[in-house]
Amino acid sequence: MSESVSESMKRTWKDECGVVGVWNNEHASRLSYLSLYAIQHRGQESAGIVTVDASGEHRVQKGLGLVQEVFDDVSLDRLSGRAAIGHVRYSTTGVNQMANAQPMQANLFNGPVAVAHNGNIVNANEIKKRLKEDGAIFHATSDTEVILHLIARHHSSNLVDCLQAGLEELDGAYSLTVLSHQSLIAARDPYGFRPLVLGTLKNGDGEKSWIVASETCAFDLIGAQFVREIEPGEIWWVDASGEHSIKMKKKRERASCIFEHVYFARPDSIVFGQSVYGVRKEAGRQLAEQDEKEGFLKDVDLVIPVPDSGVPSALGYSVQSGKPFELGIIRNHYIGRTFIQPHQALWRED
Amino acid sequence: MSESVSESMKRTWKDECGVVGVWNNEHASRLSYLSLYAIQHRGQESAGIVTVDASGEHRVQKGLGLVQEVFDDVSLDRLSGRAAIGHVRYSTTGVNQMANAQPMQANLFNGPVAVAHNGNIVNANEIKKRLKEDGAIFHATSDTEVILHLIARHHSSNLVDCLQAGLEELDGAYSLTVLSHQSLIAARDPYGFRPLVLGTLKNGDGEKSWIVASETCAFDLIGAQFVREIEPGEIWWVDASGEHSIKMKKKRERASCIFEHVYFARPDSIVFGQSVYGVRKEAGRQLAEQDEKEGFLKDVDLVIPVPDSGVPSALGYSVQSGKPFELGIIRNHYIGRTFIQPHQALWRED
Amino acid sequence: MSESVSESMKRTWKDECGVVGVWNNEHASRLSYLSLYAIQHRGQESAGIVTVDASGEHRVQKGLGLVQEVFDDVSLDRLSGRAAIGHVRYSTTGVNQMANAQPMQANLFNGPVAVAHNGNIVNANEIKKRLKEDGAIFHATSDTEVILHLIARHHSSNLVDCLQAGLEELDGAYSLTVLSHQSLIAARDPYGFRPLVLGTLKNGDGEKSWIVASETCAFDLIGAQFVREIEPGEIWWVDASGEHSIKMKKKRERASCIFEHVYFARPDSIVFGQSVYGVRKEAGRQLAEQDEKEGFLKDVDLVIPVPDSGVPSALGYSVQSGKPFELGIIRNHYIGRTFIQPHQALWRED
Amino acid sequence: MSESVSESMKRTWKDECGVVGVWNNEHASRLSYLSLYAIQHRGQESAGIVTVDASGEHRVQKGLGLVQEVFDDVSLDRLSGRAAIGHVRYSTTGVNQMANAQPMQANLFNGPVAVAHNGNIVNANEIKKRLKEDGAIFHATSDTEVILHLIARHHSSNLVDCLQAGLEELDGAYSLTVLSHQSLIAARDPYGFRPLVLGTLKNGDGEKSWIVASETCAFDLIGAQFVREIEPGEIWWVDASGEHSIKMKKKRERASCIFEHVYFARPDSIVFGQSVYGVRKEAGRQLAEQDEKEGFLKDVDLVIPVPDSGVPSALGYSVQSGKPFELGIIRNHYIGRTFIQPHQALWRED
Repeated sequence: MSESVSESMKRTWKDECGVVGVWNNEHASRLSYLSLYAIQHRGQESAGIVTVDASGEHRVQKGLGLVQEVFDDVSLDRLSGRAAIGHVRYSTTGVNQMANAQPMQANLFNGPVAVAHNGNIVNANEIKKRLKEDGAIFHATSDTEVILHLIARHHSSNLVDCLQAGLEELDGAYSLTVLSHQSLIAARDPYGFRPLVLGTLKNGDGEKSWIVASETCAFDLIGAQFVREIEPGEIWWVDASGEHSIKMKKKRERASCIFEHVYFARPDSIVFGQSVYGVRKEAGRQLAEQDEKEGFLKDVDLVIPVPDSGVPSALGYSVQSGKPFELGIIRNHYIGRTFIQPHQALWRED
Repeated sequence: MSESVSESMKRTWKDECGVVGVWNNEHASRLSYLSLYAIQHRGQESAGIVTVDASGEHRVQKGLGLVQEVFDDVSLDRLSGRAAIGHVRYSTTGVNQMANAQPMQANLFNGPVAVAHNGNIVNANEIKKRLKEDGAIFHATSDTEVILHLIARHHSSNLVDCLQAGLEELDGAYSLTVLSHQSLIAARDPYGFRPLVLGTLKNGDGEKSWIVASETCAFDLIGAQFVREIEPGEIWWVDASGEHSIKMKKKRERASCIFEHVYFARPDSIVFGQSVYGVRKEAGRQLAEQDEKEGFLKDVDLVIPVPDSGVPSALGYSVQSGKPFELGIIRNHYIGRTFIQPHQALWRED
Repeated sequence: MSESVSESMKRTWKDECGVVGVWNNEHASRLSYLSLYAIQHRGQESAGIVTVDASGEHRVQKGLGLVQEVFDDVSLDRLSGRAAIGHVRYSTTGVNQMANAQPMQANLFNGPVAVAHNGNIVNANEIKKRLKEDGAIFHATSDTEVILHLIARHHSSNLVDCLQAGLEELDGAYSLTVLSHQSLIAARDPYGFRPLVLGTLKNGDGEKSWIVASETCAFDLIGAQFVREIEPGEIWWVDASGEHSIKMKKKRERASCIFEHVYFARPDSIVFGQSVYGVRKEAGRQLAEQDEKEGFLKDVDLVIPVPDSGVPSALGYSVQSGKPFELGIIRNHYIGRTFIQPHQALWRED
Repeated sequence: MSESVSESMKRTWKDECGVVGVWNNEHASRLSYLSLYAIQHRGQESAGIVTVDASGEHRVQKGLGLVQEVFDDVSLDRLSGRAAIGHVRYSTTGVNQMANAQPMQANLFNGPVAVAHNGNIVNANEIKKRLKEDGAIFHATSDTEVILHLIARHHSSNLVDCLQAGLEELDGAYSLTVLSHQSLIAARDPYGFRPLVLGTLKNGDGEKSWIVASETCAFDLIGAQFVREIEPGEIWWVDASGEHSIKMKKKRERASCIFEHVYFARPDSIVFGQSVYGVRKEAGRQLAEQDEKEGFLKDVDLVIPVPDSGVPSALGYSVQSGKPFELGIIRNHYIGRTFIQPHQALWRED
């Protein structure tokens, strides 16, 4: 599996995303919007929300850009209903950005199903090939469509059965939220490669609303309570009869993506059961400890972080080593959003 | 079949569209753009073009709005390749406009296939139901997706065989252009319900380019020569080995949509082998003849057309009856594009 | 003056515009919007509306594009107040389009003043030069700014006095609507070169609202009653004390722009006291009469109009000559709005 | 003057801006773009650039939003010429944002003049009143227009004389860049209230280009060398004959805005001759020193900055006090850009 994981790691950089889900709240679309907004750092290419309206139909709004560019009050009103899932997608190159925007939504024999996915299916291409030979058509290049096809091809009236049967075929990383006309589902691969957390919120009627998100910082923004992680290999769902959970047959030993703690996640999130800020600081502390052992500290004058994700580690290093912490690199918070680079401006006619 | 036809007629109003196809021209995307522009009157909701680039991959650009709003020089350059199909869609209500934008494109076991469709498949829902039970997933509500699924489920390496097998299952109206990495296909239902014409153009290399379009006015704009109608029940295609044609097994007696001559088509087009302008004028002439027989003419003072489609008929009536032709109704060419109506402005606070 | 008029005619092509004004109506911004919409054919480059809100301040909304692109319900609500003027500007080339968008609005010693102008001031450059030497600054290239400066430099607390003093200095063509915090003014040059008409409408409170517009077709759309032309050389205004009118000292013999009847105006408008449709038809009739005299008719087989403005003339010619009227040229109502021309598409790489 | 300064301070919050200027560089528009981009933190409401093209005419591009939203390669190419000034404006409420976008540009008796202004003219309203009574018209509400009028009303063929005469009348804060068809001017009020710095860059021809900017971080991005501050009360300019400098008659004792060091400026800029980062850190150090004296330190457990501007001060406090520095508040770099707030989402229907 090491090969797959490393493969998975390679693709990580272009497939980082964030997912959310909301159940039993009159403000489902707005809570999804705010949750996506809190995890905007996980993806800026596209954003999308799907809700189930009063008639059991799905309502979809997807677009390229930041959540505040894709949605406004009018579209959030149109996204009526008490259940929703949402997705933010990491910026990638390629012309098919819109076709790959999530959540991906389709009408199946047992009704509409929408899937929001964060991860990489290592054996996606083999499965795609098999499905195509069996007459499946693919509109996009993302792995998410594979999951929809697998659900569609298992003939049970029980969506969770269909989903589980499909997921058992997958190898790799996935943290999913799935929405039908009857239930909200959250599922996580047996490695627990990507984060996925469960929370609750008291809704307007005093009842309990359920919130699922990639990171706990989404709960903080909307005032939801963090309950627990969705377990590796767990399929959790909530429907009219309450919440339920099963474990997938396939077992793997935990292999969480270290880049979540190092880079992707927000420092104020709890990821894989630990504070991201704490983990980063401890990493810096340990590095200082090691440098001390190896006699490198004498050459250290200052500890300068690369902002913003490097700040806690540099802080930990500074505390442990006693070397002064200074901000030597200033981040322009607009950087990366300019369409010309300095050298272009100067070299353009050369 | 009368039931289906009338059903088909009913749905006509929301499914009127225009299709084009180009083969063997370095300007395939621009010729598609201009052809769509010439038949813009057939659909203003969305526009799309798919090309096959040098590597055999499809390039897709679709959007809501008029062709000049959806495409610009940058997108037409990106749509590289010597073969293309295009589509304009009639304005409809509903939230799924973007998902229904055509051409619809998918990756099948034997490569990428794109379909642009004008018409109504009368038995689409039965077929959809059967396909879903067989594990198919539908992203949109348009009939076009059904055609893609039918192609995908016939296991021949020959796309035309797959298409024919699929079309034989359909009942209703369709005029199609289909693009793979190897061929451009044009097909028309056995009724010949919607128009579809074939033309040629000398390309930059002095070779022959093939053009397919809903109406001949597209040929006039790009300087192409009208060759002939695609016959009812004909599947025509062109590939590396030249042009080919077969007839479908299913036979029907011709039942062309009268609304093409009355309303949809542009008066300078030749549709169903006749000049639209001529047919409209003759209809007016015959109406006058009849009114004369029935003694109504004495009550006629003026002949005033409802612009623009009514002008030729009123002219024919005037010539036959000798009654003066006057323009009594002026069309604001911006009408229908304002977001408030006069009464709203005045009644708003009432 | 013939030199100036011909000069004026030359510049006409780039300075054709439309103006409106509304007084004493709770829907002032929406009536302005609809009136501009009815005269959209007079200018598609930019549109603007200025209102006087409850506090006596001006509210301004201007933008490039069609009226329905520049305004929406939100902006029309923001344009509160019971008095307004509006403007549509003809498409021109040049980079200063936004700076030249009208109405032009400024704060003067006696309060805010906005001017919407249709015409050409023949001696604008001499006056500009003089004003600049006197310390005036110009932000745009349009003549309208000159009018604002002339108003600003006449020190009377009476805006009409200031305006009249300014207009007496001007030579050339102007049809204006002017809005202050206290009055709506309509003024027309002594030649009566451009049209300007006055109408009334019963407002929600049963009181009389006043409407000024370039063409009567604006009245038809909003259900206003045509009262009369604003006379050549007349300055008409309405304020809290009712309506008033004065004549300018400068007298000229009437010299109306023939292009209004030939081309600019909508055929269902009454311009310079005559139906545009009637004038066009009569022009065709007279041409036939002349051709008959000169023996040309024997060579005439058909009468084919260049749509749309040529249709009435061709009709008149046909009636007079007895030669058959046919539509030989079909207008694509989207034409002129495409960013590439057919030859470009074909010649592009040549 | 203390009253005016405090008044000035109050208004500071809504009038914070950034200015730049470029002389003698073929990439004048791109260098301006990049310099504005580096000081984007000084204003996000609107951005603008004015250049002098080969014919001596001004070219203007202004718009609402961030520099990368207002400009693209096409507009930067259109902004041809070897000299330019630019401006970014701080976000304000109000409907006149576009009219107040800078640089403000006008045609005066001695040619086109553009002004980019950062500051507050304390006696702007008195001067405006006087100018209006003298026939001046004002299109916007910003003080910058006052400066243009004052330049326009001093009749010298020497722009610097006109500018100086105007500035001598002003009281308050201004850091300006001014562009004519012949020179680039930089001027700063006698208090030196707002920053303004001078730099040089070797251009493509190996000649010297001059750069003026609000902060040195603009120089760092484009690789320019920091030369010196523009002195309080200095008018510096460069033209065909080289660089020049004069001092204004009016003298004031230096009164720089402390908020530049506390909040506005970027920590990696040198402002008023000192490193912003260093000043912030020292402020924190001194606060700790004082708390120590006053015996407050015993109650301090942690030092937590309010990001981002508070980080250096907290660092200084931590170093001086020996209390641990921790990041307790995480900034969402998208915050402030969402159109709904959490409470709205939840309370909306309440």
